[in-house]
Amino acid sequence: MEAVSAPLSRPAGQVDDLVRLAGPDMAAVDALILDRMQSDVPVIPLLAEHLVGAGGKRLRPLLTVAAARAAGVEGPLDAPLKLAAAVEFIHTATLLHDDVVDASQLRRGKVAAHLIWGAPSSVLVGDFLFARAFELMVETGDMRALGILARASAVISEGEVLQLTRAHDLNLDRETYLKIIGAKTAELFAAAAESGAVGAGADRAASDALRAYGMNLGLAFQLADDALDYGGKAETLGKNAGDDFREGKATLPLILAFARTRGREDAFWDRTITKGHRTEDDFRRARELVIGTGALGATLDEAGACADRAKTALTALPRSAWRSALAELADFAVSRAA
Amino acid sequence: MEAVSAPLSRPAGQVDDLVRLAGPDMAAVDALILDRMQSDVPVIPLLAEHLVGAGGKRLRPLLTVAAARAAGVEGPLDAPLKLAAAVEFIHTATLLHDDVVDASQLRRGKVAAHLIWGAPSSVLVGDFLFARAFELMVETGDMRALGILARASAVISEGEVLQLTRAHDLNLDRETYLKIIGAKTAELFAAAAESGAVGAGADRAASDALRAYGMNLGLAFQLADDALDYGGKAETLGKNAGDDFREGKATLPLILAFARTRGREDAFWDRTITKGHRTEDDFRRARELVIGTGALGATLDEAGACADRAKTALTALPRSAWRSALAELADFAVSRAA
Repeated sequence: MEAVSAPLSRPAGQVDDLVRLAGPDMAAVDALILDRMQSDVPVIPLLAEHLVGAGGKRLRPLLTVAAARAAGVEGPLDAPLKLAAAVEFIHTATLLHDDVVDASQLRRGKVAAHLIWGAPSSVLVGDFLFARAFELMVETGDMRALGILARASAVISEGEVLQLTRAHDLNLDRETYLKIIGAKTAELFAAAAESGAVGAGADRAASDALRAYGMNLGLAFQLADDALDYGGKAETLGKNAGDDFREGKATLPLILAFARTRGREDAFWDRTITKGHRTEDDFRRARELVIGTGALGATLDEAGACADRAKTALTALPRSAWRSALAELADFAVSRAA
Repeated sequence: MEAVSAPLSRPAGQVDDLVRLAGPDMAAVDALILDRMQSDVPVIPLLAEHLVGAGGKRLRPLLTVAAARAAGVEGPLDAPLKLAAAVEFIHTATLLHDDVVDASQLRRGKVAAHLIWGAPSSVLVGDFLFARAFELMVETGDMRALGILARASAVISEGEVLQLTRAHDLNLDRETYLKIIGAKTAELFAAAAESGAVGAGADRAASDALRAYGMNLGLAFQLADDALDYGGKAETLGKNAGDDFREGKATLPLILAFARTRGREDAFWDRTITKGHRTEDDFRRARELVIGTGALGATLDEAGACADRAKTALTALPRSAWRSALAELADFAVSRAA
């Protein structure tokens, strides 16, 4: 098997600076999240807490807070904290619905909520969190921020439906694939950052720059995730490697490997992805093809290009520790997979 | 079998005046609904059109428009039309999710969408319509109206979850039952009317009156629907009579009949509702008990009291053809079942 090495030119990046800088703001966001997921209907906080309490990286609300800070706010934040909690609620609602849609078994290392409380509760609690997100936004009184997150919510569900109808289609082209992950993943990163800047009263140039940063960061994260599923750094397979393949998902590594083995491996792809008849050993073969054809490297290159665009967008902002930390995050999005 | 006769004092009411008055406004709302459910993702407009095109009474957006008019607006409406379309999108989204949650076979006389396009598409298109509703609200620029509909959306999903967890519980008391239908049904009627008034620039007294009207109208409609399921006017069984019983739903007629036959019919209710083992003949028996114990009449009395409260709320508004038509609607909500 051909080894994959990350382009030597890419810096590693790290997320620690940003997490440390945002610590106090994120503590306030966490308190707001816990407060607003309460309800007199007992199953609602139980189910929400199952997912919210499982942690996760809180990357999206972190972006909202960091965008407000990178745009220059120094005192206490108000609207951006509420928008950050709203962003996490929207994200949690989509996870609850996604897990019902995909019949997923696990989420954030725990049994998926619908397997404990049933799909109906997951659907309805997702709706509840989505509504609560809009209540939080209304409290900010910021109609522009509301418009950004309302539009993002519509785009996300369009992306999910598009993915649903094209999930096993290896003939997806690169552009359609990027459109899907742009809608289902990167749009919320973009809206999280843009709304944080808007809620902080930033000017248009700053909020546009932070939107472009968020969009490209989201693409970089998703592409790197897609690469990680086929091993990323070849010698350190991620613990969930193979999940996408086992679900027959046509992600970029697979789309590229399929195109690059046309006429040679059609029967293999047709059986394992299009028809969905897979054996235990098929992932090893798919991985060899994804790596051997350079499809994995090309996916990581694409992720790297997105990270670079994210960093370029940041140059429209004043220099600050926050701006540097956001740039580090963009590099980290790729390096964890490369 | 004891016959049920409607209290002679109740006027029949009618809906025709309101439908005629609102005709031009509702044509504009329909055009807006059709325009905003479009998407580049083909399954979205197809699925939405299946439900929206099936008609239904459009009672909720009708309330929004009528509230704006009853509050005194005479020229062209702007914000209330958008809010009316948003209200219908919220309603359609909850129907899509409800049908997945209840595994319903039919909706508005057509095969339920999830049986054609699958539950995943129904969940995601519901999310899309919900997001589009908020985009429409943002366009109005009216933060108060947005707050009313955001809060209503949260309350509706809480009501749905509460109903889900107590669906077959005959020990529900009247207050809890009214709380559930208040949240899952009447809250959207209340918010539809209140937001229409607010979007029309009405003062607080008028918007509060229209909220109270909508809440009580919604309760009257739901209680009358619950009565219709057991025959309503005893000699003219509704075409879907028995649906609630066949789903084992603990609605008010059943809750009251259960309480009034304690010690005599416990085994029957335990088997048919709590345990859910029903035979074809059981509905006939349940209906006899619901009618014979006066539970049906008491449910209709409750509906009548709500209709009266709805009409009383209207007296805070200036006299107009719209106000009269809304009063007629409140009577009609009950008379169609009594």
